[in-house]
Amino acid sequence: MQCALVSRGFDLRDYYGKAFDKVADRIQMQSHPADDPAEVRMAVAWHPPADAFDRYPNLQAVCTIGAGADNVLACPSLRPGIDVVRVVDPAQAEMMSGFITWHVIWHQRRFASYLAQQRRSEWRRLPQRAARSVPVALLGYGQIGSRVAADLTQLGFPVLAWSRTPKSMPPGMRGFHGGDGLFAMLREAEVLVNLLPLTPETRGILNRDVFAALQPGGYLIQVGRGEHLAEADLLAALDSGQLAGASLDVFAREPLAGDHVFWQHPKIVLTPHDACDVSNDALVGTLLSTAEAIETGRRPPGAVDRVRGY
Amino acid sequence: MQCALVSRGFDLRDYYGKAFDKVADRIQMQSHPADDPAEVRMAVAWHPPADAFDRYPNLQAVCTIGAGADNVLACPSLRPGIDVVRVVDPAQAEMMSGFITWHVIWHQRRFASYLAQQRRSEWRRLPQRAARSVPVALLGYGQIGSRVAADLTQLGFPVLAWSRTPKSMPPGMRGFHGGDGLFAMLREAEVLVNLLPLTPETRGILNRDVFAALQPGGYLIQVGRGEHLAEADLLAALDSGQLAGASLDVFAREPLAGDHVFWQHPKIVLTPHDACDVSNDALVGTLLSTAEAIETGRRPPGAVDRVRGY
Repeated sequence: MQCALVSRGFDLRDYYGKAFDKVADRIQMQSHPADDPAEVRMAVAWHPPADAFDRYPNLQAVCTIGAGADNVLACPSLRPGIDVVRVVDPAQAEMMSGFITWHVIWHQRRFASYLAQQRRSEWRRLPQRAARSVPVALLGYGQIGSRVAADLTQLGFPVLAWSRTPKSMPPGMRGFHGGDGLFAMLREAEVLVNLLPLTPETRGILNRDVFAALQPGGYLIQVGRGEHLAEADLLAALDSGQLAGASLDVFAREPLAGDHVFWQHPKIVLTPHDACDVSNDALVGTLLSTAEAIETGRRPPGAVDRVRGY
Repeated sequence: MQCALVSRGFDLRDYYGKAFDKVADRIQMQSHPADDPAEVRMAVAWHPPADAFDRYPNLQAVCTIGAGADNVLACPSLRPGIDVVRVVDPAQAEMMSGFITWHVIWHQRRFASYLAQQRRSEWRRLPQRAARSVPVALLGYGQIGSRVAADLTQLGFPVLAWSRTPKSMPPGMRGFHGGDGLFAMLREAEVLVNLLPLTPETRGILNRDVFAALQPGGYLIQVGRGEHLAEADLLAALDSGQLAGASLDVFAREPLAGDHVFWQHPKIVLTPHDACDVSNDALVGTLLSTAEAIETGRRPPGAVDRVRGY
């Protein structure tokens, strides 16, 4: 089976070459645009160009790298009937959770101040707060959110979680939903972690109203999608001190422009959309199960609901 | 009851004044040397001067700040029969564990590289390893060690632990003890966390042999006592690359001298002996229970075994 590699600004073969080698006897990876487009029945894509899929009349499934399918679903040339398949990696929630945990403790334990003191060779103890004094609110409570909640609870942080629809929560955790629920949760929270999928309803959700509702000196950990964030509102909240800082892993335009104000902002910690890698093993599994589903006329495992968006 | 505040280079009243205020109707804090030394029956101490306790003929108990009693036990004027009481704070293990967790993930997820890239406005994704690929070895498995083990296990890290005597471990964790056990553990570990009490047996235990036994590119998290560490051996292991880095919170001389090579070493993260604060509540509880024990002729709760050293 032939599979097209379709991405903008990110060399999939560089990054996932080892995974592609492992499936080479079953699936032949073709650079986009492929030489023999009628033979291409599947694709691996990341931010595909608008007309990318027009070229492939027999395309049946597109595998997307990462937990969010929005960048593929938004492609105008994605015809109805083409399945969009997320790579589901059991290790992904764990990796994301460790990343978020690090940023929560970075804020709680004032590590930015310690690193600055070290640069000045300055020995100064800083009063500390226990984890129970730093409530963390999660926007999104799916596979990743529930893992983050369990890990932060183990470490002693009070955890609140918001989801679109009501969900059952483990003992000791408090769940919220709907618009009223969102602000009820924010008023009790100091750290806000964005894990939402990008949909028309969630676009721009990280805005001035949300930041203002958090406890003063709050902290944003943004690992959803860049389009969730109203950038000017974040900068204003940092300037006013309503937010003490922010950790940003995702951006509306990636790579982030070299002259973007986020890079050198003293209250921002910035990572290059790296909160979690898809493992080669998980990618291999998804590629093989997708190819098999196409050949046997079934819907690929992990295909997203294209209307709901995740 | 009168209580002397005895410390070198650390103003106890500045730091713990609120706790002292809370017990002021029962215990009167006196700066050292106290005006009426015969009235002093207890003390709060941190690195007391060598002759400090000679001045107080009726001293019965010394409360030490922090989990380690070594700095008080080493004081030559600590007569036999004076009880040394550790402040036991249930939140202390949790706070220490969050601190250690942060440093483990700092190493695993290459955050030093991300921060350096940010300073250069450089967008570059870095390949990541799952927690299960980064085994963590704990030196010491007491109240704090068992909490650290539970938290790191929850986050997906393989945890090994070494203690002086055999201890039972929860399922999935591997325990080691004795000299052979130490090196058997180190050979399987990438991150080494020192939680040992300082005793004649453990002094200098963090040395070249220990560093050489770790997996190449290992990492040291030093939250025990400065005297555990052979400083020159650490610098050599960092220079050779055998260790990828080290996080140091404790030092043989504190505050660390302003011109010490550790401050600006590119592979060292340095904090000012702040991995865990004793909370005011915990200190208040210990002060009151110690005063009551003295008045009723009992041994104070939390008194250490002066021969064993912890």
